[in-house]
Amino acid sequence: MIGRVFAVSAICLFSISAQAGGFSPYVDKSGNITLPEDFRKEMSHLGSWFVPEGGASGFHDVYTQKSTIEAFRKSGKFPDGAVLIKELRASESGSYTTGDNVSHATDQVKQWFVMVKDTKGRFKKNPVWGDGWGWALIKPDNKKKNIALDYKNDCLSCHAPVEDKDWVYTEGYPTLLK
Amino acid sequence: MIGRVFAVSAICLFSISAQAGGFSPYVDKSGNITLPEDFRKEMSHLGSWFVPEGGASGFHDVYTQKSTIEAFRKSGKFPDGAVLIKELRASESGSYTTGDNVSHATDQVKQWFVMVKDTKGRFKKNPVWGDGWGWALIKPDNKKKNIALDYKNDCLSCHAPVEDKDWVYTEGYPTLLK
Repeated sequence: MIGRVFAVSAICLFSISAQAGGFSPYVDKSGNITLPEDFRKEMSHLGSWFVPEGGASGFHDVYTQKSTIEAFRKSGKFPDGAVLIKELRASESGSYTTGDNVSHATDQVKQWFVMVKDTKGRFKKNPVWGDGWGWALIKPDNKKKNIALDYKNDCLSCHAPVEDKDWVYTEGYPTLLK
Repeated sequence: MIGRVFAVSAICLFSISAQAGGFSPYVDKSGNITLPEDFRKEMSHLGSWFVPEGGASGFHDVYTQKSTIEAFRKSGKFPDGAVLIKELRASESGSYTTGDNVSHATDQVKQWFVMVKDTKGRFKKNPVWGDGWGWALIKPDNKKKNIALDYKNDCLSCHAPVEDKDWVYTEGYPTLLK
């Protein structure tokens, strides 16, 4: 019985040490950003956007860690290591018992945007890091590759209207409120 | 040191026994259904609907337990105790860098629909239970009260088109796919 208890404790200690090890499980030592696995199941939903037309049309579903929501509710700020994932999916519309022209996301993912909060300026030589975040754009054909090369050219202009909200459109994220 | 280990183990055992105790933490012995606390943070997002007009207009954000997603991915069925929460929120639209007439949910909740899967026909005398589910409609002015009185009159007609999918519009829930 005591042996079993010690075995459980050893697993717990290993788990804690793995979490505390690096800056983020989604960032390597050079600042390369990867897409979190199965984030729709494992993370919390911040909110969704519906874009009716154009290249970005469809649903934009946005996720983060549960711990990020808890920290933001206390401080009003995204904590170091916060990861925001915006998944763009194609949509379908139809008549439902809730109304006409009702839209929902389909199984077709267009792309993902990933932002990782860095309050310490860790990757000054890496051009996808700056202004307090790491920035990534990932396409379904290669989930391991960030196709953004320089966040100032590839990412920042779309976020410029919300520079005063740490570059995030928080008005669409009611989960931050509680 | 051994004392500390035993204390941690005692907490773990208590936690497991609390989860295994009743049918569902959201259903009392009479079959009364309550709204899960802080489900947007604590649960997983199945998918969202956007309804542009009418009484149900806005975002319909749908959540369930992580364990329900894992079970559904294996069996294609909602497991006993699965809870589905559909939160209806008013929306706002505007021009964004992603496009024009882009919509997002606001802080105004209109109402919640809650369904609880019951594979054992537990509450035969309670008229909000039947066809494999418990059914609830909850308004923000009283989060403790299910205002549905009889699921056959108050709930079922809106779900009739998807009777063959266990009464759930699963086409809007890409998280079930993986």
